Amino acid sequence: MAILIDNIGELTTNDPELGTRHDAAVVLDGERIAWAGASGAAPDADERLDVGGRAVLPGWVDSHTHLVFAGDRTVEFAARMAGKPYTAGGIATTVEATRAASDEALAANLRRHVAEAERQGTTFLETKTGYGLSVVDELRSARIAAEVVDEVTFLGAHLVPPGVDAESYVDLVCGEMLDAVAEHVRWVDVFCEEGAFDEAQSERVLRAAVKRGLGVRVHGNQLGPGPGVRLAVRAGAASVDHCTYLTDDDVAALAGSGTVATLLPACDLSTRQPLAPARRLLDAGAVVALATNANPGSSYTTSMAFCVATAVLQMRMTVEEAVWAATAGGAAALRRDDVGFIRPGGRADLQVLDAPSVTHLAYRPGVPLTWAVFRRGVHRMFNPSPLG
Amino acid sequence: MAILIDNIGELTTNDPELGTRHDAAVVLDGERIAWAGASGAAPDADERLDVGGRAVLPGWVDSHTHLVFAGDRTVEFAARMAGKPYTAGGIATTVEATRAASDEALAANLRRHVAEAERQGTTFLETKTGYGLSVVDELRSARIAAEVVDEVTFLGAHLVPPGVDAESYVDLVCGEMLDAVAEHVRWVDVFCEEGAFDEAQSERVLRAAVKRGLGVRVHGNQLGPGPGVRLAVRAGAASVDHCTYLTDDDVAALAGSGTVATLLPACDLSTRQPLAPARRLLDAGAVVALATNANPGSSYTTSMAFCVATAVLQMRMTVEEAVWAATAGGAAALRRDDVGFIRPGGRADLQVLDAPSVTHLAYRPGVPLTWAVFRRGVHRMFNPSPLG
Ligand SMILES: [Zn+2]
Ligand SMILES: [Zn+2]
Repeated sequence: MAILIDNIGELTTNDPELGTRHDAAVVLDGERIAWAGASGAAPDADERLDVGGRAVLPGWVDSHTHLVFAGDRTVEFAARMAGKPYTAGGIATTVEATRAASDEALAANLRRHVAEAERQGTTFLETKTGYGLSVVDELRSARIAAEVVDEVTFLGAHLVPPGVDAESYVDLVCGEMLDAVAEHVRWVDVFCEEGAFDEAQSERVLRAAVKRGLGVRVHGNQLGPGPGVRLAVRAGAASVDHCTYLTDDDVAALAGSGTVATLLPACDLSTRQPLAPARRLLDAGAVVALATNANPGSSYTTSMAFCVATAVLQMRMTVEEAVWAATAGGAAALRRDDVGFIRPGGRADLQVLDAPSVTHLAYRPGVPLTWAVFRRGVHRMFNPSPLG
Repeated sequence: MAILIDNIGELTTNDPELGTRHDAAVVLDGERIAWAGASGAAPDADERLDVGGRAVLPGWVDSHTHLVFAGDRTVEFAARMAGKPYTAGGIATTVEATRAASDEALAANLRRHVAEAERQGTTFLETKTGYGLSVVDELRSARIAAEVVDEVTFLGAHLVPPGVDAESYVDLVCGEMLDAVAEHVRWVDVFCEEGAFDEAQSERVLRAAVKRGLGVRVHGNQLGPGPGVRLAVRAGAASVDHCTYLTDDDVAALAGSGTVATLLPACDLSTRQPLAPARRLLDAGAVVALATNANPGSSYTTSMAFCVATAVLQMRMTVEEAVWAATAGGAAALRRDDVGFIRPGGRADLQVLDAPSVTHLAYRPGVPLTWAVFRRGVHRMFNPSPLG
């Protein structure tokens, strides 16, 4: 079944040859994009959807979330915003709730958040384990994630669980835990930060992953300068995420590498950190992705549009840079070339905005602009109250 | 027809006696709130809506918008975000498009934006004239606004139109133009800022308004320090809006006055100004409101939730302060006591969030959380995909 999406006022393809086009059309055939080009030149299709001059772009590729969890941390968040100390919270709270939840509850919560993201234009989503921190709980987290989302990352090395010695825990992560989860995951990640895992421990985790043929990524330089970025580049990581505190050497290392700098502005704001230095990275030639870091502690949003608006309004990314970073950039951070673009052969993932251009994503911050979403060719949603 | 809204997980009333309650209920009777209190104690009603533990709060009171306009300024916005000079734009572009539009087109555009705001929880909305800048165009702007929105402000003194001498224009605003619009408006506003109207000109506008028995408000201290705030306080204005650049004297003047400081964070971000000093104002004891400043130039959003999230994440307002400022604060800026609260006798305006607490407005930035809206007792909208 082929569908012609026609009368596109502005089509963002991210493809250098197809470019950004006006008066455009796209044909989807099943789960794939069959054609994209000028409206008048479109091939025949079984069905035609007139989008009335609206903007069409690739679906968001959210390359960094932590959505296998239970519970919430509303009280901790409110205390942080009120400037009050709150020592009882943190990742450990979510670990406890996650361990106590049934498989069904974890899967339902994950599906609920994925559906929420999709209603906001996200068509491809990575998620991480990391609230299990035991062999059995990391395994079921990985298994549940693999059933629901597009890409799964093993983050056993999220935090050393209470009462466990760090070195022994790293042994467990690199050994029995990795053995258990490996069939469900494509990526291994480590939280390389003071208070989590140091450089040597992080490197052990990455080496164990590479040895097993898994891809690697790193949480680095979130709360202060540190070795995370350079470790990620050295290890050939697909991405290093956060990048809030970067030295000039870090920026140069990223610019000369195949490692994507994934920025998480909603997390920076939700933890009252400075926003990551997007402009420095882009000006140096680094590849930048934007993602939500959706998780119940430091960044409880599924809104890629919020990240894009923040990147433009406050991080001095242009609209084009931000949209690219949240689509093709996310794909690069996951080393995919079948998503993040609108071009023949790619996955039939796209979003229609209730606006004539992608600029409106930043021009109209906070306004829900998702009008329709296609994911693997399935037309999932129409805004019931289109603005006309 | 009375409706019982029951099983409210968290009810924010803004009423000192009713407070914030859990396991609460509200009864609406026609256009008025009939009752609010503990779930088990609710009186009988014709209908019952179980909101499943969700949070209920007053509808947003957006006390500052400029929505009688035509055209858009996407290109100007994109140029500003890319750091490129763009001299052809500005308010004059919108004035030209507005003058050229038919009454029907202006009314339709206004209704479209009001409906968009309502889908995001706004149940009471002020709008301003100010893109007409001639007697005939200001009059029709005021007339159209009065047909559609809750409160109308005359802003003939938005800008001196090209080719007109400032003093003569102020004469026109204070004389013939004010005479023409007076029956349609409750408020008169002036843009007191370098490049717009100076202190003496602004004061003339306010005096003319007061003489006619109209309320006054001021746009002040948006682009730099200036006399706007103190002029507003001296004139007994209901509010002074923007307040981005404040001296300690300005803050003290506001704190000792009946003038509300209306902050417009989406405008500050969209023009890359610093965010207004909310914390200084609140700590000094000033009354603070939050509003969108929705307009096609400097702040093209209708999202009060975005303003609330920004206020909490970046302006160090607590969630409670921000929610109050966007509801009761807006009402204070319009000198209304029938909206902005949930208490017997008030207008039957409220919103139901798809979340268990108002904290989620900042905890989950960008996620559309409006689940249902009642406006004057009319149940306008349900999120078709509730999160459960
Ligand atoms: Zn993370
Ligand atoms: Zn304004």
